[in-house]
Amino acid sequence: MSDLKEANDLVQLRLIFLGTSSSIPTPGRSLTSLALMRGKEILLFDVGEGTQRQMIKIGIGFGRITNIFITHFHGDHILGLLGLLQTMSLLNRDRPLNIYGPRGIIGFLRNNMRYLKFGLTFQISVHEVKGGVIMKEKDYVVEACPSEHSVRSYSYLLKEFDRQGVFYPEKASKLGVPKGKLWSTLQRGENVTIGDKIINPDQVLGKKRPGRKIGISGDTRPSPLLSKLFSNADVIVFDSTYGEEYLDKAKENMHSTCVEAAQLAKDAEAKLLVLTHFSARYSDVSKLVFQALKIHPNVVAASDLEVIEVPYPDERV
Amino acid sequence: MSDLKEANDLVQLRLIFLGTSSSIPTPGRSLTSLALMRGKEILLFDVGEGTQRQMIKIGIGFGRITNIFITHFHGDHILGLLGLLQTMSLLNRDRPLNIYGPRGIIGFLRNNMRYLKFGLTFQISVHEVKGGVIMKEKDYVVEACPSEHSVRSYSYLLKEFDRQGVFYPEKASKLGVPKGKLWSTLQRGENVTIGDKIINPDQVLGKKRPGRKIGISGDTRPSPLLSKLFSNADVIVFDSTYGEEYLDKAKENMHSTCVEAAQLAKDAEAKLLVLTHFSARYSDVSKLVFQALKIHPNVVAASDLEVIEVPYPDERV
Repeated sequence: MSDLKEANDLVQLRLIFLGTSSSIPTPGRSLTSLALMRGKEILLFDVGEGTQRQMIKIGIGFGRITNIFITHFHGDHILGLLGLLQTMSLLNRDRPLNIYGPRGIIGFLRNNMRYLKFGLTFQISVHEVKGGVIMKEKDYVVEACPSEHSVRSYSYLLKEFDRQGVFYPEKASKLGVPKGKLWSTLQRGENVTIGDKIINPDQVLGKKRPGRKIGISGDTRPSPLLSKLFSNADVIVFDSTYGEEYLDKAKENMHSTCVEAAQLAKDAEAKLLVLTHFSARYSDVSKLVFQALKIHPNVVAASDLEVIEVPYPDERV
Repeated sequence: MSDLKEANDLVQLRLIFLGTSSSIPTPGRSLTSLALMRGKEILLFDVGEGTQRQMIKIGIGFGRITNIFITHFHGDHILGLLGLLQTMSLLNRDRPLNIYGPRGIIGFLRNNMRYLKFGLTFQISVHEVKGGVIMKEKDYVVEACPSEHSVRSYSYLLKEFDRQGVFYPEKASKLGVPKGKLWSTLQRGENVTIGDKIINPDQVLGKKRPGRKIGISGDTRPSPLLSKLFSNADVIVFDSTYGEEYLDKAKENMHSTCVEAAQLAKDAEAKLLVLTHFSARYSDVSKLVFQALKIHPNVVAASDLEVIEVPYPDERV
């Protein structure tokens, strides 16, 4: 039944926080980067200075990175990208790589590669995003949505498609479908024909099970657009540069407070809020978590090299 | 006698290794950067990715950096520069800063600051070096010399001027110079007049005492030009990407082995050789030190955040 097993296999999804500091690093926090590891591939959201070394420290390797998403053109979100590309080339990568970012990313890369003269050993496809679905894979999409920061910036959402429902072998047997390949066909959602009878997958499968939704805000003020983008997300990773006592600064610098992040997560009915991008003024961010917990019941603060596993909604305990 | 004390004061000179890895960082080694802290100022040689965070970790601050020297345009030597400039601006620096580097550095900075849009809060003067004395201060100069690497590259030498000789108070008293301001004048190497008698500093001072010479190779093959540049240096910090077993690779990639570094230090009659820029293949570099010690009696391997104090030649024990 290996076919059936594979079709039922769950894809592991982990968030690995490579850098959780805003603008200036601290002894304990590197600059912004988040690795979303889904199955065997890594999607990297922002590549602040120091990202490659954080990846080396945690030992996840560079080969699995398939797609890189840049939220905006501030140094603390992009200045690790060139070093990462250089290191991938030094390691003789040949797997193609997609890079998504705001308008200007093509010029930024082209100019710097001219100065730095490191020959890429692999193909990169660089995409200037405008919003909407920017990437579609077999079982998920990534959407971009303009966020509200001091420069052109985007938030991203990874949205898995619904999975097939649970397969009921006894129903299949009762309908006369022999165990084996045809079970897998039904499990994949395709009809099978037994004699002159067409068996429909709905007859043997439970109802569809929802995929996961992961939202990554980048630097932003809260906004109705983002509440909508992130609605019903399993996890929102949100700008929490400041505590509520610095709301004025958050507004001035186009960031969010932990409480604003929590309010947005509540409005969006997100299951878990992960605070990140902390101002260097906070050596201990537990205060920010407590402030946010007054608004939303499920809040954690990201720390460098921390791994958060994201279960499917129907697996959540 | 505070004037006399000040005139006799020694200027502390320390080398602080911020990154000692070649091309790819490792868990224990950040990318290349060396802070030469002389008195209250810091001269930074190369600014690999991660330099600002290393400085934050060791707590030496950014305000004292007066001059930055880039050896060449490889990412692992320059990709921390933009983040450092951004951080200095976020900290509202107003002290001007000099940046020296190979041809192209002006364009590199201009282009990136256009993309990254961080407004500098301070003036930078960017100098494209060609070799020779590139900077002259009250009591030292910095020289650049072309090195032999795969792209245009320079080695640097900091050379202090000779200091005045030891002041002999008894000689001054015997010549009728009253204790006080005039002693300081003589100590500074200027004549004083007592009645109709001109007293020459040579009459009260010992012979001039040599200043210090610090050589920083950057990435390079050994070369006669560098042996000459570094002759009689107190310290040479030299490319030691490989052990002697990888001489072929060193030649191919235009780097040096530890043994070649030691031979150059020996030829130059340098007092201390500091090996650095180690290939990521070496987690333990003691083997490289032992290989080098067969050629030169005084060799150490740099490690990240290590501080080496450099005494004056006449103070050395």
